[in-house]
Parts: sequence; C-alpha cells; structure tokens
Amino acid sequence: MNNPKVTLVGAGPGSPDLITIRGLHALKDARVVVYDALVDLSLVSLAENAIEKVYVGKRQSNHSFSQDEINNMLVFYALKYGHVVRLKGGDPFIFGRGKEEMGYLNQKGIQTEVVPGISSAFSVPGLQGIPLTYRGLSESLWVITGTTRHGTVSQDVNIAARSNATVAILMGIHHLTEILEIYLEAGKSDTPVAVIQNGSLPEERCVIGQIATIGQIVKREQIGAPAVIVIGEVVRLHSDYYHTSQEYELALD
Amino acid sequence: MNNPKVTLVGAGPGSPDLITIRGLHALKDARVVVYDALVDLSLVSLAENAIEKVYVGKRQSNHSFSQDEINNMLVFYALKYGHVVRLKGGDPFIFGRGKEEMGYLNQKGIQTEVVPGISSAFSVPGLQGIPLTYRGLSESLWVITGTTRHGTVSQDVNIAARSNATVAILMGIHHLTEILEIYLEAGKSDTPVAVIQNGSLPEERCVIGQIATIGQIVKREQIGAPAVIVIGEVVRLHSDYYHTSQEYELALD
Repeated sequence: MNNPKVTLVGAGPGSPDLITIRGLHALKDARVVVYDALVDLSLVSLAENAIEKVYVGKRQSNHSFSQDEINNMLVFYALKYGHVVRLKGGDPFIFGRGKEEMGYLNQKGIQTEVVPGISSAFSVPGLQGIPLTYRGLSESLWVITGTTRHGTVSQDVNIAARSNATVAILMGIHHLTEILEIYLEAGKSDTPVAVIQNGSLPEERCVIGQIATIGQIVKREQIGAPAVIVIGEVVRLHSDYYHTSQEYELALD
Repeated sequence: MNNPKVTLVGAGPGSPDLITIRGLHALKDARVVVYDALVDLSLVSLAENAIEKVYVGKRQSNHSFSQDEINNMLVFYALKYGHVVRLKGGDPFIFGRGKEEMGYLNQKGIQTEVVPGISSAFSVPGLQGIPLTYRGLSESLWVITGTTRHGTVSQDVNIAARSNATVAILMGIHHLTEILEIYLEAGKSDTPVAVIQNGSLPEERCVIGQIATIGQIVKREQIGAPAVIVIGEVVRLHSDYYHTSQEYELALD
C-alpha cells in the first residue's frame, strides 16, 4: 500500500548544492516530484526513485498551472503513488505559498512535512560578501515582497525606509523606481544598495550603488529578474562598494 | 604545500541534517574545524579529514574565547594546516559576526569563502507549521536581535511593533518582558505570539499565546534559551493556536 504524503522541500537560492541534506533525502525517496521555476534541473534529476517529475512553473507560451490545479495534482499523486516531493525555490514558507498547499492537503487527510530551504533573501547577499547584520551598522533584517498579491509594492517598504533595518526585497526589480522613490522621500538618497541577479548561479551578476544612483546603474547594466535588492549600510562592506561609487561619480563629471 | 583558506559554514538551526550539501562537503574536506555552541557534535564528527576540532563556544565554568582569540586561531590553523572550516550555528552572516572574521582573515591575506546556513529565525517557525509570510496576513518578515551589543533590546522592535511585518526575535527570551511591553504600548495585546525553544532538535518545545498572555505561559512552562520569538498574525495558523488560546482563557476564569 502507498502511504500518501507530501513533503514540501525548499530547494534553496538556485545552486543545487545549497539544498539541505534532509531535503536531498526526501528528494531521493520521492515517487513523484512537482517542481517550480527557479529550481535547478540537476536537483530534480537526483530524484532517482521518481516515476513522474512534473514542472508546474510558468511557461513562456504554454498554459501555466493555477494554485488549485497544483493542489489537486498533489492530492492525486500522493493517493496514487505515495510520497510526493513539492520542490520550491528558496524556502516553502517565505513568499512560497507552502502553507496554503499544506492546509489543502491536510484538509484532504494527506500527511505533510516541511523541509526548510535557504531563501535567496538571506543567502544571496551573503554570498556576495554583504552580511545582513553587522555590529554597529544593522541590528535587524527586514525581508519584503516587492510585488504583493495586488501587484503593488508592499506598504511595509514605507516603514522600512524609515528604520535602520537592512532591507532585502524579493520580486521587486520591476518596481525598483517606486521603491527608490519611497527611500528618496525618506531622505535616504545616500543609502547604499546592491541588486543581485541570479544569485548563487554561474550567471550571477551584482551591481552596487546608492538610492540616488542604483536606478541608472541597473538600467545601464540591464539587470533583470530574478533579483534580490539589498538596501542598507551593510552594503558598504561589499568589496566593490568604494570603488563603484567613486567610479560612478567620476562618470557623472 | 598547504593552501591557507577558511570556509565559514552555516550549520543551520540545530538538527544536523539541516546543513547544506555544500557545507557538508566543506566539512569533509577540512583539516581543522573551529565550532561554536549550538553546533551539533554529530555534525562535527563528519569532518573525517580533520586533525583538530576546536570548540570555541562559551563554557559554563572555563575560559571562553574572545573574538580576537578566535580570529588569531583561524589564521594560525589556516597557515599551519590549510583548509579550516569555521562552523557556526544558523547562518554566518545573520547575527553571526562572520563578516568580522572574514575581514580579519582577508587582511592577513587568507582566502575565505562563505557557505550560507539556515538561520533558526527562518526555519524554526516553519518547522512548527507557522509560515513567516502568508497572503492576506503578512507581506514581510522582520528578524531582530533581542540582545544588541549594548545588552539591550534593539530599538527596531519599537518600529516593528507598529508595522504589519511578522517579527522573529532571536536571543530575546531574557528580554521578553521588555519586548512584550513595547507591543502592549503599541496597542497590540491581542497579537499572537509563539516561543520555540531548541527548534529542530528532539527536545524542541513550543508555546503559543498572545502578547497579553505569553509572558505567563513562558514562565509557567519554563521555556528558556535558545529560543525564537515569533510575533504576528501568521501565528494563528499554528495548529494549536485556537486550542491554546481558548484553554488559557478558560484557565483564567
């Protein structure tokens, strides 16, 4: 008999070796893997027991799956084959809608487990040498979505801009202008900013500037999604910070 | 010839299988491991190539190492034996002073690398079924230290209490009364709170309440350090929330 169970596994920020040991074990045990965009295929290939591997991320042209369809698919596969791994980029519970999926599965009587993953918000800056907290510079870290369910920047950014927290914004690159305006209004034009695209992957790119300059730098360097925006004094600790800000000011002369 | 190098590895929240694959590889390769309190010894034992394994966490009675001593030790071992792994609980860059150690090592010409870990702030609530963000309840997550370098609660808690962010406080259990007062002053007496001790370990304990009640619950249940305090509407999603808050109110009658 199958023992229907869904394990929600956080795949980490992108590089396949940034999954946890526990996550890897779940993946190797799974009969079915249901995975999102931003999950590395080499990770999916480690699911050696899986008879089905289903991609449910957005596709450029084709149909993409709704949350209801994903929920129903998880129930279907768990009842049919037993252990299903739901593999999500980052952590399942940080902007991952993992709890919604768990709630649905539990309602249907299916056992669930969550294996935490490393959210890109916390790891991508560190891999660039930017600590999220640092004695004397920052005592806290605020992670905010740049795109709420209403498609807007979270109102929390208004409060964050007036705090001393290091702010990490996910899914915010398309709202960068709006975010920078909030900081400008808060009188923070000099605050350092880093924007890191494809963090932890070979194609990773990082640009550094300040609230007043980063918009132009991102445009010039054509930095796009997926990206983490890090705002705060800790960005000064990036090895390029001094160099880049000087270079940019020279270029403006 | 030795190739002096220090890899700062995040060990995760406690359970040894919540380290990353990359972290495990570094550990297996290390000639020396320098590790903190809160790091599981079974993880240290996986460093099969290590000729020295040095505990630098606080000891109850004996001498504990100063940051300067740890810095010098890392330089000494890297020059003498080559690859040193500096194993820290959680993530090296989230309240971990990892950047200070990296800065010192780089000044001494020693190569460094950082391997992110899962901070207990992000994983321990999730393992209890509390998502840190949830559509309609929370669009952001604020992680704050409960004990700054001055030994006080971070001033950021004052702003956090007035925001809609989910707030996770590390190293805050000894300042719980002060933290709760800040929330009471902000008119948040009904806001749900969870306090989780020894998250991810077999001895994990979790209590649930509200700002007005959690102080007494923590005292009654004798919850101590290390603990993560989670404050925000998402705590309502914990399976015990409804049950516990009702039970507590009945007990008060």
